[in-house]
Amino acid sequence: MSTARLTSRAENYPEWYNDLVKMADLAENSPVRGCMVIKPYGFAIWERIQQELDRRFKETGHVNAYFPLFIPKSFLSKEADHVEGFAKECAVVTHSRLMNDPNGKGVVVDPASKLEEELIVRPTSETVIWDTYRNWIQSYRDLPLLINQWANVVRWEMRTRLFLRTTEFLWQEGHTAHATQAEAIAEAEKMLEVYAEFAENVLAIPVIRGVKSASERFAGAVETYCIEALMQDGKALQAGTSHFLGQNFAKAFEVKYLTRENKQEYVWATSWGVSTRLIGGLIMTHSDDQGLVLPPRLAPIQVVLVPIYKSDEERAAVLAEFDKLRESCKAQGISVKVDDDDGKRPGWKFAEWELKGVPVRIALGPKDLAAGQVELFRRDKNEKSAVPFAQLYSENFLTNLLEDIQRTLYQQALTRREQNSHRVDSYDEFKQRLDAEGGFLFAHWDGTAETEARIKEETKATLRCIPFEGRGEAGQCMVTGKPSAGRVIFARAY
Amino acid sequence: MSTARLTSRAENYPEWYNDLVKMADLAENSPVRGCMVIKPYGFAIWERIQQELDRRFKETGHVNAYFPLFIPKSFLSKEADHVEGFAKECAVVTHSRLMNDPNGKGVVVDPASKLEEELIVRPTSETVIWDTYRNWIQSYRDLPLLINQWANVVRWEMRTRLFLRTTEFLWQEGHTAHATQAEAIAEAEKMLEVYAEFAENVLAIPVIRGVKSASERFAGAVETYCIEALMQDGKALQAGTSHFLGQNFAKAFEVKYLTRENKQEYVWATSWGVSTRLIGGLIMTHSDDQGLVLPPRLAPIQVVLVPIYKSDEERAAVLAEFDKLRESCKAQGISVKVDDDDGKRPGWKFAEWELKGVPVRIALGPKDLAAGQVELFRRDKNEKSAVPFAQLYSENFLTNLLEDIQRTLYQQALTRREQNSHRVDSYDEFKQRLDAEGGFLFAHWDGTAETEARIKEETKATLRCIPFEGRGEAGQCMVTGKPSAGRVIFARAY
Repeated sequence: MSTARLTSRAENYPEWYNDLVKMADLAENSPVRGCMVIKPYGFAIWERIQQELDRRFKETGHVNAYFPLFIPKSFLSKEADHVEGFAKECAVVTHSRLMNDPNGKGVVVDPASKLEEELIVRPTSETVIWDTYRNWIQSYRDLPLLINQWANVVRWEMRTRLFLRTTEFLWQEGHTAHATQAEAIAEAEKMLEVYAEFAENVLAIPVIRGVKSASERFAGAVETYCIEALMQDGKALQAGTSHFLGQNFAKAFEVKYLTRENKQEYVWATSWGVSTRLIGGLIMTHSDDQGLVLPPRLAPIQVVLVPIYKSDEERAAVLAEFDKLRESCKAQGISVKVDDDDGKRPGWKFAEWELKGVPVRIALGPKDLAAGQVELFRRDKNEKSAVPFAQLYSENFLTNLLEDIQRTLYQQALTRREQNSHRVDSYDEFKQRLDAEGGFLFAHWDGTAETEARIKEETKATLRCIPFEGRGEAGQCMVTGKPSAGRVIFARAY
Repeated sequence: MSTARLTSRAENYPEWYNDLVKMADLAENSPVRGCMVIKPYGFAIWERIQQELDRRFKETGHVNAYFPLFIPKSFLSKEADHVEGFAKECAVVTHSRLMNDPNGKGVVVDPASKLEEELIVRPTSETVIWDTYRNWIQSYRDLPLLINQWANVVRWEMRTRLFLRTTEFLWQEGHTAHATQAEAIAEAEKMLEVYAEFAENVLAIPVIRGVKSASERFAGAVETYCIEALMQDGKALQAGTSHFLGQNFAKAFEVKYLTRENKQEYVWATSWGVSTRLIGGLIMTHSDDQGLVLPPRLAPIQVVLVPIYKSDEERAAVLAEFDKLRESCKAQGISVKVDDDDGKRPGWKFAEWELKGVPVRIALGPKDLAAGQVELFRRDKNEKSAVPFAQLYSENFLTNLLEDIQRTLYQQALTRREQNSHRVDSYDEFKQRLDAEGGFLFAHWDGTAETEARIKEETKATLRCIPFEGRGEAGQCMVTGKPSAGRVIFARAY
């Protein structure tokens, strides 16, 4: 596959994104409206995300479990806010059998198999999980319950985009139960920090930590914590949320526990999740007009070795050196691939691995071999250099190089975010900046849902978060002039 | 939880199974008919199965991907046999929206959201995957395609049992595409061997390798390879299947490739899968009236350490020794848990970890400490022994012990299977043995679907497999007296 057809970002950013997702073999649309096929290379990236997060969840005391795909329709109605948020656009199972079409045209739904109560394909699992927790929790000894689930969920989206918004997506959802409010809040904050640390240290995506306004809160939450990232085109992306659910679901599903003092009390809850959407954020943070750019700590392949040769003798000599290099990489815990496919030319391979975002490419031909060096290409800077064997094989050379690439990508993204973050004090400037360049706009807001809705309607910018940092700088709302307790962040968002 | 309520196997085997699944915290029924909740301990076992299989799939060149949960109804009709097998009992999505009940009673299906074409929740993914492969395969260069998916599937079962038969279950499904018939057959056979090796070496379940009769074949397959295991109660369990699909799905979905000779040909296919059902097989192979028995290579916790103490000083001294032991275990790659819960007595903990099948328990109290020894309990034999520290800490002592337990469990299961495998030559003896003891019955059969159906109807025994071993011993069908090319295996089955 040649990179010739990848639209440039300047030309058309959304087209560039779509082209990249398809040409780098990450995902494609399926025959089912709004559902995607995650291709092997895209799925390998998701597997790396899963491994890194799963390890962090387990290190913080969580265990995995699995709850049903289907939710009885009546469950959704039990929590008043939740039903408003999730019951509307969803996949509804109404029958359990097909039969041969009496007219001989394939199969049709058997009307006799109509379900007594319709089942909803889970859009999120709070209801079915809290219905289950009722039987698991009797006393304070059963708490806390710290459970995570890796699952597919379905939300019937009207406009879909690969990874960013799809009808079916993959995610993890943590659901925890606690004896006290303070413990539940601490859990929700801890998991936000797990997400933030993962986003920054593995995905190399700088994020802003904060809470959502009431209007943007998860349906059924008392407080929604979030991490927000800024994409290259100046639009925001919510990269993860963690919810303090108060006693809302415990009350809806009658989940009480016996305290140490022998009293019956409702249980406190959190839930938190990240999804395949992160892959969209990853692409839009680091990638360029040559294709995907992957941070080394996440890349399924960290180093690719491309042999250059004409004769069989040259091939054998180059591959012998690559055997040695591959072993050296493995010994350092570096994931490496030798691309020894005879059917493709080196130039084709170079473009292909650039498109796929492999952090380091090492090419070796007979002349290099004679000179005792390799040609090393780092994808973050798109720079080639000659590296003598002595340096290449020196202790931790490649490990250090990968760490340098990781840091460079993070720093680059952070610099871009800082350049695109502005304090604005007038609504006019706000609108101008939004139209001219987008970015994170730190503005004073009077704290009302009305003003927030007006800004959204007039500018398409949403209140991304009330950041933890910089709390307390009082001022006047840029729209109404009413008092504001601190700047909040607005942006147009994915 | 006390073991007092676990029904014994002799008393009531199905009840024992249900009790065990619930009391060992493996799984439970969910509020959704036929769907289960896999609890954290049960899910930890599934995670170990996933890890072991996923490694084997990758070592044999396969990659993971993800295909949609939903299948358009019309896809199921494209392969004539497939639709008969899978289109009948399934979850049918007909609508995409709920709305507030005009009568104010919760939410109801919005009739305006009726889908143009119904979607089926995947019972298996051949159809949607082969529809996708059509775009991925153009020439012989694109082959083979070696892809696996870890997913949930739904088959609307009338009678369900936890793990063994549930409406929703978790599984992996491999779907490969090949240029030649020979290569596809070799793949199907290779994956059967991967399953067999895993069953025997990790699950410690001896299996018989063979092929299914035409009546028992996967709907759409040319040949179904299988591994069959024998449970403690004399009933068979199909532990994994691998299908050679010929060109059936390639023809149904028009998947052709350009050969090296520049000709268009249909692609050859395989599919293969194992599911959470394996956990049911694991339970019914090794467990006893005390509860679950787990083979060490699969156990999430291989060694549990139970401290015995009265005073705080005793507690500190015992736990200090356990710190040392835990580090020693970790250094050997042994998964270990110190059960230092102050709220429970040692006897309760002993019963609990026996119920949960942890292979080795080590108890240590002040007297043991003074004597320089521990009390070691091995779950396979339910035997206690005193082990001096010098021996306990000697090189590979615990590793070797765990391997011995693994071997013992396998050997025990193999001996039981051999004792319950019989060659029978008359239909009368066949019926008597089935009623008296069950087991694998090796009998001659005339190769017709009619005789197979008659045996099933009259005895409830099904033809489990035509085994690879012992092919070629000619004889006469026990029912019709007609010629038979070799003995096949019948049993009553789960």
